[in-house]
Amino acid sequence: MVAHSGSRVAIRTAVELSDWLRRRNIEVALDEPILRSRELDGAAAWKPDGKYDLVVVLGGDGTLLGVARSVSPEVPILGVNLGHLGFLTEVTRKDLYPSLVKVLAGDFDIEERSLFDVEVHRTGGEAASFRAFNDAVITKSALARIIQLELRVDGHLVARFRADGLIVSTPNGSTAYNLSAGGPIVFPGLQVAVLTPICPHTLSLRPIVVPDSRAIEVTLETQDEEVYLTVDGQEGRSLGYRDRVVVRRSDTPVQLIRMRGRTFYASLRDKLNWGG
Amino acid sequence: MVAHSGSRVAIRTAVELSDWLRRRNIEVALDEPILRSRELDGAAAWKPDGKYDLVVVLGGDGTLLGVARSVSPEVPILGVNLGHLGFLTEVTRKDLYPSLVKVLAGDFDIEERSLFDVEVHRTGGEAASFRAFNDAVITKSALARIIQLELRVDGHLVARFRADGLIVSTPNGSTAYNLSAGGPIVFPGLQVAVLTPICPHTLSLRPIVVPDSRAIEVTLETQDEEVYLTVDGQEGRSLGYRDRVVVRRSDTPVQLIRMRGRTFYASLRDKLNWGG
Amino acid sequence: MVAHSGSRVAIRTAVELSDWLRRRNIEVALDEPILRSRELDGAAAWKPDGKYDLVVVLGGDGTLLGVARSVSPEVPILGVNLGHLGFLTEVTRKDLYPSLVKVLAGDFDIEERSLFDVEVHRTGGEAASFRAFNDAVITKSALARIIQLELRVDGHLVARFRADGLIVSTPNGSTAYNLSAGGPIVFPGLQVAVLTPICPHTLSLRPIVVPDSRAIEVTLETQDEEVYLTVDGQEGRSLGYRDRVVVRRSDTPVQLIRMRGRTFYASLRDKLNWGG
Amino acid sequence: MVAHSGSRVAIRTAVELSDWLRRRNIEVALDEPILRSRELDGAAAWKPDGKYDLVVVLGGDGTLLGVARSVSPEVPILGVNLGHLGFLTEVTRKDLYPSLVKVLAGDFDIEERSLFDVEVHRTGGEAASFRAFNDAVITKSALARIIQLELRVDGHLVARFRADGLIVSTPNGSTAYNLSAGGPIVFPGLQVAVLTPICPHTLSLRPIVVPDSRAIEVTLETQDEEVYLTVDGQEGRSLGYRDRVVVRRSDTPVQLIRMRGRTFYASLRDKLNWGG
Repeated sequence: MVAHSGSRVAIRTAVELSDWLRRRNIEVALDEPILRSRELDGAAAWKPDGKYDLVVVLGGDGTLLGVARSVSPEVPILGVNLGHLGFLTEVTRKDLYPSLVKVLAGDFDIEERSLFDVEVHRTGGEAASFRAFNDAVITKSALARIIQLELRVDGHLVARFRADGLIVSTPNGSTAYNLSAGGPIVFPGLQVAVLTPICPHTLSLRPIVVPDSRAIEVTLETQDEEVYLTVDGQEGRSLGYRDRVVVRRSDTPVQLIRMRGRTFYASLRDKLNWGG
Repeated sequence: MVAHSGSRVAIRTAVELSDWLRRRNIEVALDEPILRSRELDGAAAWKPDGKYDLVVVLGGDGTLLGVARSVSPEVPILGVNLGHLGFLTEVTRKDLYPSLVKVLAGDFDIEERSLFDVEVHRTGGEAASFRAFNDAVITKSALARIIQLELRVDGHLVARFRADGLIVSTPNGSTAYNLSAGGPIVFPGLQVAVLTPICPHTLSLRPIVVPDSRAIEVTLETQDEEVYLTVDGQEGRSLGYRDRVVVRRSDTPVQLIRMRGRTFYASLRDKLNWGG
Repeated sequence: MVAHSGSRVAIRTAVELSDWLRRRNIEVALDEPILRSRELDGAAAWKPDGKYDLVVVLGGDGTLLGVARSVSPEVPILGVNLGHLGFLTEVTRKDLYPSLVKVLAGDFDIEERSLFDVEVHRTGGEAASFRAFNDAVITKSALARIIQLELRVDGHLVARFRADGLIVSTPNGSTAYNLSAGGPIVFPGLQVAVLTPICPHTLSLRPIVVPDSRAIEVTLETQDEEVYLTVDGQEGRSLGYRDRVVVRRSDTPVQLIRMRGRTFYASLRDKLNWGG
Repeated sequence: MVAHSGSRVAIRTAVELSDWLRRRNIEVALDEPILRSRELDGAAAWKPDGKYDLVVVLGGDGTLLGVARSVSPEVPILGVNLGHLGFLTEVTRKDLYPSLVKVLAGDFDIEERSLFDVEVHRTGGEAASFRAFNDAVITKSALARIIQLELRVDGHLVARFRADGLIVSTPNGSTAYNLSAGGPIVFPGLQVAVLTPICPHTLSLRPIVVPDSRAIEVTLETQDEEVYLTVDGQEGRSLGYRDRVVVRRSDTPVQLIRMRGRTFYASLRDKLNWGG
C-alpha cells in the first residue's frame, strides 16, 4: 500500500516500490495519483478507512500529517522522506528497500503518537469535527484587528486575552508552528497539550503545558472579524462570534513505525543546528 | 478643528468643545460625523490637507493614527483620550479644557514623531503608496502556508526567511504590534526602524534595529498564497509574487503636542504594569 | 506542628496557633525559632523526619519549599501565607482558623506534587544529593565566562551547548525561575521535567518538556570557571570540570493540602495579571 | 605594532608579521607576550596609550574588545581573526598579508564604533570607571537570591524591577550577551544603548532601545546579596547596596578598519545561520 504527495519523484518511487512488493506477493493498494500515472494490473485503490497491514507514505512530514489524520488507527505508518530530513519520516529514499526488508521481517518499533479530536461548536450553524496530528490553530485573518479569545481547561477559566491567535499543539506539533510562536519542545510520548498564544497583547501570557485528557475550550469573543480554525495547517474553517473550539486527545493514537536507532533528540539536534 | 472616532461620547465632546472654542472666536472645522450629528452654523468641514493651527483628535490611539497619517505635516496634533490611557493621547477628558487653555496660551511642547513612507512596487500592476505612523506589516492569511520573504536594507541582503510575516515598525509602533511579536521597545525620538519577524521558521532570526534613513525592502518570494500588506492595522493591500514593499522615513514628521510632565517612561510603566 | 520563616508576624501567629491547637487537645511540635521566642510547656521540638498528622507552614512559598524538601513524604502540608498571595500557600492569615477547622474535620483535598532527586557525581570527590521541589539550576558565577554543558536524557545526547546555565524544573517550579528564563508554565499534576537553558549562545536551543521518570544528566564541560548547582534557590554546591548532575522524579511526592475552590489557573491569572 | 591573545598561533603570526613589517621599514611595538617569546632587536614594547598609526590585533573578537577599551581613541584598529569568523575581526589569517598591503596603501574604510563610559558611584567607598566596547552587565552571583534594580534614563524612572540582572549594551555588544538574553540586534552605527533585563521577574519587562547620549543609571536596591558589574565580560567589580552604575556614550569612538566588501548583514547571516 502506498500513498504520496504529488511530486514526480514520489510517484516514480511509488511505482517501483509497488512492483518490488508485488514480486514478493504482497498486495498493494495505491492512491489516486499513483494509479493515474500508470496502469498497474491488480492494484487496488487505497482507501483511508481500509484495513491494511501497513501504510507507506512517500513524501515529507506534510504528506504524513494528512495520512495520519485520516488512516484507520490500527494501521501502522512508515514515513519515507524524499526531501529534507523530517521529524516524522525518518527513512530516506536510499534506505527504503533495506528498511522495508526489516519491516517485512518484523524488525521495527511502533511509536504511538497522540491525535487530538477537534470539535467546532457553532452558536448558529452546524458543528464540524477534525482530527489533528500537529495542531489546531485559531487565528485572525491578516486584515482583521486583534481578536479576543477565552481559554478554558476542564471547565476552568485560564485566560481571556487579546492576541493574533492561539495554537493548541500535540507533542508532535511542538516542533512545528508552536516552536516558531515561542512554545516549548515536548517529548513525543507525553500525554499533554501545549497552549501557545500567537503575538499576545498581554505580555505575561506564556505557553502552558496541560494534560491532554481534559477538554481544552477556546471561544471567540470578537464580532465581525475574520477568524479561522486551521488543523495541521491543511484544513480550515471560518469561525464566528461565540463559536467554540473543543480539543482533547483522541482515543486512538497513530502507530508510527520507527527503525531502531535514531532518537527524537538526534532529530532535534539535526533540525535545529544544536551541534553536539 | 476637531476630528473623532465615531463614538457618541466623542461626538458629544466634540460639539461641546467646538462651542467652547467658538465662544473664544476661534474658527473650527469639523469632520463629517460631527457635522452630521448637529447643525453648527459657520462650522467648516475638516479636510486632511487643510492648513490649520491645531488638530484636536478625540478618541484613542487608533483614531490618532489615522489622522497622523493623513494630516498636513506642519499641523500640530493634540490627542484627547476618551477611553483607556494611551501612548499617544495623553490628555484625558477631565483635563480637556484646562489643557486647551494652556495650548491656546502656547504653554506646551512639540514632540516630533517619525512617519514612514511605504511603497508597493508590483511586478505586474500599479504601484501604491502609504504613510505609516506605527508600522507596515507583511503577513500571510490565516489559511496560507508559511511564506518566504527577502529582506534588504540599503540594498544589502539581510535575510531570506520563512515566517508568518514581518513587521517594519517606527519607534511609535514599537509598543504596539511589534511588542506582541517579541520586538524591543524603542524610545520615540530615535531615527530607527525595527524589523521584527512574526513567528519565524528560522529560530535564530531576531528583531533588528536599523537606521530608518535607508531603504528597507521586503520582497515576497512565495507564489500562490494570500499575503497582505497592512499599514497601522488600518489600511491593507494584497501582495503578489515578487511584489516589493519599500519603507523609509518620511521627510516630514508628525507634530504631537505634549503637555509638560508625563514622560514616555511613565506611560510604559503604566501600560505594561512595570511597577515602580 | 508548626514551622515558619523567622518573621515576627509568623512567630506571633505560630504561638497563637499552637495555643489554639492545644486548647483542642492537639499535640504540637514547634521549630527552633518559635520555641526560642516563648516558653510553651509541653511543646516538643519539630523534626523534619518526625511522624506528624499535619505540618502547618507559616510564611511564603519560599518557607514551604524548604519544608517540602525535608519533611517525611507521608505528612501532609498546609501552607499559610502571611504576605503576598502564593502559588503554594493558598490559605491567608484571615482564613487561618476557619481553614484549620475544616482541615481538622477532614474537609480538604490532597494534591500530590512531584519532588526531584538531584545527585551530584564528582570526578574527584564525594557525591552529594538533594531533593528539589522547584528546580535544580546549574549556573556560572557572575564573573565567569560562558560555560559549556552537555545534556542527556535517558542516556541520549540532547545537546552540547554554551549558555549561562540550565534550569531543570518540576511542574511546581515552572512558574518560578523557569518562567523568568522563558520556559513554559506546566500544570502541576504532570509527570514531566522542563529543561530551560539560561541565556543560551545557540539561539535555536529552546525549553524542552521531557518525562521526569528518565534520568536527566547535565555534565559541566568547561574547566577553570566558577559554576554552581542551586536547588530551589536555597541550597548550593560548587561544580567542577566533568562533574555530572543527575535529576529524576523522587519516588515519594509531597502531599499539599488544598482547600476546595481555588484552581491553579485562578492563581495564574492573579499572579500574572492575565485578567479575565 | 601588534597585540595578541596568548595563543601560540597568534604569537607565531605576530612574530612573522613584525618581521614582514620591519622589512618594509615600519617600526613596530609589540606587547609583552610576544616580546617574551623571542628576542626582536629594536622592537619597542606596546603601550595602550601610545601614539601609533595602526594597531593590529591578532586573536578573536574577545582580544579585540580588550584592546578597543584601552587604546588611544585616534588609533585605528585592524582585527585579524585566527579562529572562528568574528563580528569585529574580519580579516582572516589567509588574507592577512594581502589585507596589510591594502591598509598600508590606504585602501580601506574606517568604521567608528561607540564606546560607553561606565562609572560606579558607591555610597561608601571610592568610585571606579571603565570603558565598555560591548556591554556593562549588572548580575547577581549564582547563589544570591533575585535582586532588585532601579533603572533611570536621563533622570526619569524607567522601572524598578526584580531580575537576575541587566545588560546595558552598545550596538557592538547587541550580537553578544544581549542576543542570548533576548535583546534585539542593532546596526553598528546607531547612537543608541540597548537595555535588556536578564531573566526578569516581571514578564512584561522587555528590552528597550534608548539614546546613548543620556545618562543610563542603574541602582542596586537589594542588600546583603553578592552582585557584580562586569564590563565586556572581562573586567568586574563587586556592587553594594545603593551603589549606582552610570553609563553613557564616550566622547571618543573606536576606529575599526574595514576592508571594503563584507557588510554587517553578511556577518549576521554567517554567524546566525540565517541562510539566504
